[in-house]
Amino acid sequence: MVLNEKLNPTSNPHLPFGDQRGAPFYGKDILSVKQFNRQDLAYIFEVAHEMREMVTRIGTFDLLKGKILASLFYEPSTRTSSSFTAAMERLGGSVIPINEVKYSSVSKGESLPDTVRTLECYADVIVLRHPEVGASAEAAKYARKPIINAGDGVGEHPTQALLDLFTIVEELGQVDGLTVTMLGDLKYGRTVHSLARLLSLYDVRLNYVSPEILRMPAEIIEEVDGKDIPQAEHRDLEAVLAETDVLYVTRVQKERFENLDDYDAVRGLYVIDAETMTRAKAEMIVMHPLPRVGEISMDVDDDPRAAYFRQMEYGLYIRMALLAMVLGKA
Amino acid sequence: MVLNEKLNPTSNPHLPFGDQRGAPFYGKDILSVKQFNRQDLAYIFEVAHEMREMVTRIGTFDLLKGKILASLFYEPSTRTSSSFTAAMERLGGSVIPINEVKYSSVSKGESLPDTVRTLECYADVIVLRHPEVGASAEAAKYARKPIINAGDGVGEHPTQALLDLFTIVEELGQVDGLTVTMLGDLKYGRTVHSLARLLSLYDVRLNYVSPEILRMPAEIIEEVDGKDIPQAEHRDLEAVLAETDVLYVTRVQKERFENLDDYDAVRGLYVIDAETMTRAKAEMIVMHPLPRVGEISMDVDDDPRAAYFRQMEYGLYIRMALLAMVLGKA
Amino acid sequence: MVLNEKLNPTSNPHLPFGDQRGAPFYGKDILSVKQFNRQDLAYIFEVAHEMREMVTRIGTFDLLKGKILASLFYEPSTRTSSSFTAAMERLGGSVIPINEVKYSSVSKGESLPDTVRTLECYADVIVLRHPEVGASAEAAKYARKPIINAGDGVGEHPTQALLDLFTIVEELGQVDGLTVTMLGDLKYGRTVHSLARLLSLYDVRLNYVSPEILRMPAEIIEEVDGKDIPQAEHRDLEAVLAETDVLYVTRVQKERFENLDDYDAVRGLYVIDAETMTRAKAEMIVMHPLPRVGEISMDVDDDPRAAYFRQMEYGLYIRMALLAMVLGKA
Repeated sequence: MVLNEKLNPTSNPHLPFGDQRGAPFYGKDILSVKQFNRQDLAYIFEVAHEMREMVTRIGTFDLLKGKILASLFYEPSTRTSSSFTAAMERLGGSVIPINEVKYSSVSKGESLPDTVRTLECYADVIVLRHPEVGASAEAAKYARKPIINAGDGVGEHPTQALLDLFTIVEELGQVDGLTVTMLGDLKYGRTVHSLARLLSLYDVRLNYVSPEILRMPAEIIEEVDGKDIPQAEHRDLEAVLAETDVLYVTRVQKERFENLDDYDAVRGLYVIDAETMTRAKAEMIVMHPLPRVGEISMDVDDDPRAAYFRQMEYGLYIRMALLAMVLGKA
Repeated sequence: MVLNEKLNPTSNPHLPFGDQRGAPFYGKDILSVKQFNRQDLAYIFEVAHEMREMVTRIGTFDLLKGKILASLFYEPSTRTSSSFTAAMERLGGSVIPINEVKYSSVSKGESLPDTVRTLECYADVIVLRHPEVGASAEAAKYARKPIINAGDGVGEHPTQALLDLFTIVEELGQVDGLTVTMLGDLKYGRTVHSLARLLSLYDVRLNYVSPEILRMPAEIIEEVDGKDIPQAEHRDLEAVLAETDVLYVTRVQKERFENLDDYDAVRGLYVIDAETMTRAKAEMIVMHPLPRVGEISMDVDDDPRAAYFRQMEYGLYIRMALLAMVLGKA
Repeated sequence: MVLNEKLNPTSNPHLPFGDQRGAPFYGKDILSVKQFNRQDLAYIFEVAHEMREMVTRIGTFDLLKGKILASLFYEPSTRTSSSFTAAMERLGGSVIPINEVKYSSVSKGESLPDTVRTLECYADVIVLRHPEVGASAEAAKYARKPIINAGDGVGEHPTQALLDLFTIVEELGQVDGLTVTMLGDLKYGRTVHSLARLLSLYDVRLNYVSPEILRMPAEIIEEVDGKDIPQAEHRDLEAVLAETDVLYVTRVQKERFENLDDYDAVRGLYVIDAETMTRAKAEMIVMHPLPRVGEISMDVDDDPRAAYFRQMEYGLYIRMALLAMVLGKA
């Protein structure tokens, strides 16, 4: 665990009133999936599950009433920022939205450390999206308030990875024993890298199905291999579809191919439709980080195994849990 | 009435807690003025009038505390989005503002159905502004949560039409028996089309005053004629000004004219100033959907018959009423 | 005092419920530092100090619950708009953010008076940032609700000046008797002009240290001289550093220089680093309106005399105080 204890209850004048000072993750940053062990994940998912039950029962509640989130997005990501905004609002808190940093005075040559040190004068927690790898760690180094990484370039997007894993837990009951198949662009897809890392903490089998030029990077495979997780690579989904408990679909972008013929040759292999689903298990789930652009046909949407919209909703609960936890209220 | 019952109280896990399940419009979409009959309008205006009294008395109240509105604008409309935001906030609810959809990842090739199915994971109701006709109906087809159409291209803008009619009701006490004169660009003006449709449910007389090339479309005139509403077209306001109870002014845009001489020839005929008002009834109102750019001189602003700023305020009450109604709280 | 009493308690239907009608500044506009005398400033700082204590103790409280701020920014200023948003939220109020006016329908040829008269239908107070001098005064002339000037071009930015002065009061206990040194671009820097004006109400000594071409304007010097305040101009900080109680640093922008050699010749003279601080008093403060771009080295940040981040926080309290005051709740 790479956690830093940044709020010292006795000396920090910014320490919020009435918080549960012994709570795990209180005052911590959420920067990388690497900072979590299985026990951490179990705790996060337990809190997220409680959030789910509360939202289902009463919609919104005042756990974070009076708390303010600065939502600092250096690049647009409506899905992620909306999810954090909803999470804060469903907990009774408020949001300072800062969505166009590039055009604003905040960024006119100002360093990221200065920007976060300004914003923490106004807010209790900062969610940061930034195009550069390591930006969140840099911000966290200077900030006294907790930083939650909402994606830093091709680096980490830990809340996405957590919601992916939480989806599996909520939908299938447990992670151990599952066969997870990742499909599509496994080279550039940040989500599948982080998910593979998290899954390697459990007793799973991983299948990677992708075009040759979009294979899972050797670095990830080696890392997962170090945890004794069985992994297999395939060009075609059919070889593993029947054994798959979780089918994680990602987009194969035309722009990744130098030769358009190569793209046309493979694209059909990575599209899931109702016909594909006839060969899948009766109890399994199809996931996708969204947005999708044709990788999953709309005729799959009404299939109960289609979990990708529920996945968005699980993201809300994960972000509610993380916000409550770092603010000492979980 | 083209209403669809989308929330099934017994089966829908998203059904909010504690709502009045028998309430009219609960869980319904607001897509078109065509969905309302006189009884519906009377009910909406009764709720809106109550909202007016509550705002006048206490400013804000917690009727929608804990509810979240996703305000999804695919094209900018600050006036409309501000009005919905204020409506939600005056009812104690929260807003997820999504204002720059074109540049955001939400829209990167993603279909509108997918976008609304994502947002409804976070929000309780979605307000949608979209440049394409029928977008709101398409969104409503897929969404489980209520959709309120905040304008879809040259199609409908039902909340504008409702606030226009509500302005008449609040200012003049009733609609039956009134002579309503619409002035300016009656061809491209979405607001006058919807207002004419709504007015045709009442016992009114309609005057259309416009340049030849900006006449009210035959389609609207025929539709209104089918309800036995007397209609008359004029080139000049003077012929009907003295009998007018409601003068609804719209902007004549220079860009509509191929020949600039034609524009210069008519523009002066469609400007209302203090001198014009000397020939109007002592009890009548001047309306305008705003923004105005010269169609109504500022020397009219202090005239008690100038209702266009009050009209903006009535829009707040209409939107408060609609939000409360579709969320089952009216 | 150039204050206008705009809310008439007996006749205005928009008068909020339950407000303290006898409170100073209730219903007033905040347009210019020129409107304040020492008594006003003492009152504002007393309220701001209370806000500081409340935020330190409980973070957020419901003094402005139910109140709505329209935050109308015709040019981006994330720092200022975030600060006002946080101020409103920490007081339990809500915000309508209008950040991209140039591209929105609000501004499509619409006059500022019409825009504010529309927004005041929705909100209880309007914060206005505008690129043109005098825009706030123009808006205030037409608005019935209070207008707070958040910067109008090279004109005024009164809340910045107030927070600068409040920083001095909170950090050093009083203003009388202090030596304040302003450093850098004193010609174009709006903040130093307003601060000099406010300081001239007190018994202070002022030093102006700048390159020849960026000297404090004669107009300001004459105005301050009329209050019998000792002023001195210098090219070099060393002459006055040892006697300085408040060092107010501003950015020297390369673009101000016609000749780049001139810029290179002076830039080093106006950079504060840890070595500079060895020659400053043990009890003094360094201020900066931020963003900084090299004028103050990061090695100064941990020096307890570095007050520029605390200065941001004092801005929050000043804006909380002003919002509460104009809404009759202070």
